Amino acid sequence: MATKKMNAFYAQSGGVTSVINASACGVIETARQHKDRIGKVYAGRNGIIGALTEDLIDTSKDSAAAIAALRHTPSGAFGSCRYKLKGLDQNRREYERLIEVFKAHNIGYFFYNGGGDSADTCLKVSQLGESLGYPITAVHVPKTVDNDLPITDNCPGFGSVAKYVAVSTLEASFDVASMAKTSTKVFILEVMGRHAGWIAAAGALASTAKREIPIVILFPEVAFNKEKFLAKVGALVKKFGYCTVVASEGVKGADGAFLSDQGLRDAFGHAQLGGVAPVIAGMVKDGLGLKYHWGVADYLQRAARHIAAKTDVAQAYATGKAAVELALKGRNSVMPAIKRVSDKPYKWKIEVAELKDVANREKFMPRDFITADGFGITEKCRRYLAPLIAGEDFPPFRDGLPNYVVLKNVAVPKKLKGDFKV
Amino acid sequence: MATKKMNAFYAQSGGVTSVINASACGVIETARQHKDRIGKVYAGRNGIIGALTEDLIDTSKDSAAAIAALRHTPSGAFGSCRYKLKGLDQNRREYERLIEVFKAHNIGYFFYNGGGDSADTCLKVSQLGESLGYPITAVHVPKTVDNDLPITDNCPGFGSVAKYVAVSTLEASFDVASMAKTSTKVFILEVMGRHAGWIAAAGALASTAKREIPIVILFPEVAFNKEKFLAKVGALVKKFGYCTVVASEGVKGADGAFLSDQGLRDAFGHAQLGGVAPVIAGMVKDGLGLKYHWGVADYLQRAARHIAAKTDVAQAYATGKAAVELALKGRNSVMPAIKRVSDKPYKWKIEVAELKDVANREKFMPRDFITADGFGITEKCRRYLAPLIAGEDFPPFRDGLPNYVVLKNVAVPKKLKGDFKV
Repeated sequence: MATKKMNAFYAQSGGVTSVINASACGVIETARQHKDRIGKVYAGRNGIIGALTEDLIDTSKDSAAAIAALRHTPSGAFGSCRYKLKGLDQNRREYERLIEVFKAHNIGYFFYNGGGDSADTCLKVSQLGESLGYPITAVHVPKTVDNDLPITDNCPGFGSVAKYVAVSTLEASFDVASMAKTSTKVFILEVMGRHAGWIAAAGALASTAKREIPIVILFPEVAFNKEKFLAKVGALVKKFGYCTVVASEGVKGADGAFLSDQGLRDAFGHAQLGGVAPVIAGMVKDGLGLKYHWGVADYLQRAARHIAAKTDVAQAYATGKAAVELALKGRNSVMPAIKRVSDKPYKWKIEVAELKDVANREKFMPRDFITADGFGITEKCRRYLAPLIAGEDFPPFRDGLPNYVVLKNVAVPKKLKGDFKV
Repeated sequence: MATKKMNAFYAQSGGVTSVINASACGVIETARQHKDRIGKVYAGRNGIIGALTEDLIDTSKDSAAAIAALRHTPSGAFGSCRYKLKGLDQNRREYERLIEVFKAHNIGYFFYNGGGDSADTCLKVSQLGESLGYPITAVHVPKTVDNDLPITDNCPGFGSVAKYVAVSTLEASFDVASMAKTSTKVFILEVMGRHAGWIAAAGALASTAKREIPIVILFPEVAFNKEKFLAKVGALVKKFGYCTVVASEGVKGADGAFLSDQGLRDAFGHAQLGGVAPVIAGMVKDGLGLKYHWGVADYLQRAARHIAAKTDVAQAYATGKAAVELALKGRNSVMPAIKRVSDKPYKWKIEVAELKDVANREKFMPRDFITADGFGITEKCRRYLAPLIAGEDFPPFRDGLPNYVVLKNVAVPKKLKGDFKV
């Protein structure tokens, strides 16, 4: 625990989200309220790589208004990276370098904003004090659209992508319903989520008791069965005239192979990486003879700050704020976690998770969140998801576009000699 | 011109948009204000097919509140269709059937809401009075996301899809900029527009003088040149670290063949219809060795009422309203057209176009709207596009989702004997 005034390091890691900057905002604004304990907040330019290469950003050079605008700005304002530190025994050099940089810039607090891999990096950094004799207080700030972190009830970033997918599924379903008489009868939307079906599940929220919409969800947790899938789609089109399919990018067959990996070749024999949506579309065409359209939301879904969920923004900010408060209490190697107090009305609070319980563990959709046929969500799942997409938090607009902030990102002068190659 | 009180027929045609129901709202609400002249508004279930099969919807069965909610509901509330009437000499049977149905239901006004093909259908119906001796006043209501109708300065439906594409391009660009250091450097977004590049052009609005974003637009109007394209992307990635490509679905090579038509085959030799985005992605990977992501917006872009442009909603409503007012003045075979009065401040008014000047003509991007290198938009184009995406008109939300209306769509009892096959 830092007893004298020290600087803080903050970095963003892995795939970015529409609210990760809201967490950054929570970290920086809270740190600024404790100037007696925390000096400056230095952000890593492009995540942990910024720390390794001594490429630090002095966030104090940006005004209070600019930092406040992070709350409504998607993506990673300081740059993110995909870079996982190896174990201390495998790569002592990188840890020693981190300590050199931390010492040179009087850094006593380490805030790392990311998912499961990043929690592992943060855990390793939190152990530097013990293993290499450098006192650091390391707190992880949870972030992942995939919603696959354990302990925390949900992950900041997920609620907004869930809302985007639910809204898009609703809107596209209205569209295909209009066209179905003479044209498109099946619309297929491919969404993210890696090995977890949380994002795909959110598509099912578009259908409600009052306004039933025929939706088929394809989860990575359920082995894909082509015959059952086509029978399901065929039955829904017969009953409703149309249907919408929300397919997770991670859908796998019974053999464990990704459905998207179909060995596509162009006319010259070059391999083409397609998504899962066109593969499903081909099955619908060949197996049922139905006209289809397909879309792949890709980055649009996780960057869509314009349709972020209000709860998600609040939780992203709150976890950033809590991380600083935990660090000031001397809590090392922990992560603020969201604890659900009640479903309806939805109430939540921040608790504390130990990083060793978070790192490198994925949380999948429980089987009782998926209907017996494997193509939909249960009422239990709906109760879980519904509050996470609630509420709107529109960004300010100017000239028809969201008025997102671009920070100055002024570099901290380097103090160390020589470059460090990552 | 109907001098006694007669009913009106309204139908939606072709691909739907996020604001075509706002036009329906304008038609129905205005007709309800003229009950001395117009009896009921009957909507065709699934467009003109509803008229041919005597499958009419009595819109008077829906409340004023439900009709008002059409203004914020995307897609076609009565169903649309892709069905083009042949010429009178080729298919006299269909025209005679229309007259039978119109007579049976005392229909004297015909409002047809669609694009270029639909304008042609409306034109043919407008000539029924002359050719088959049945008095009908036919007015076309413009609608197309492709913005390719002549005479009118812009088409209702386009502004909102343009806003969606500009917002999505902005958000995805922020995302890829965050990831570029160690991961994705090029993001490719495929958008609609058929043979016209208007929608793709809107992606360029994400970059402004104050906040420059490296964006490459691929227009159908410019023959695709792979070497020039890769050189452009390579140069932008070198300068900015990343770049975003917005590709129109209709991009063609110098040989006139669609770029999306690459003869893709799966492992079993089955032909696969991919989009243009994965084809571009493959070029970026093979030609430049850069990591990429790609998205295909498809129906999401034209159904995205949640991010509709305020001007677009207003114009969609205004053209519906004007159509009824023109009909009441006895104007047959016309279309309300949007006339731009000034760019800045943006002012517009409704004028009248003759259908013979509108039908079957496409309006492409003028060459002076496209930069010399063929990959961007000029200031002239920006002045044209900017006001069309201005303003927000968020729908009401409930439980985290837009509260879109589903009408009762009560059928009008049939009066004719026998079925009519289309």
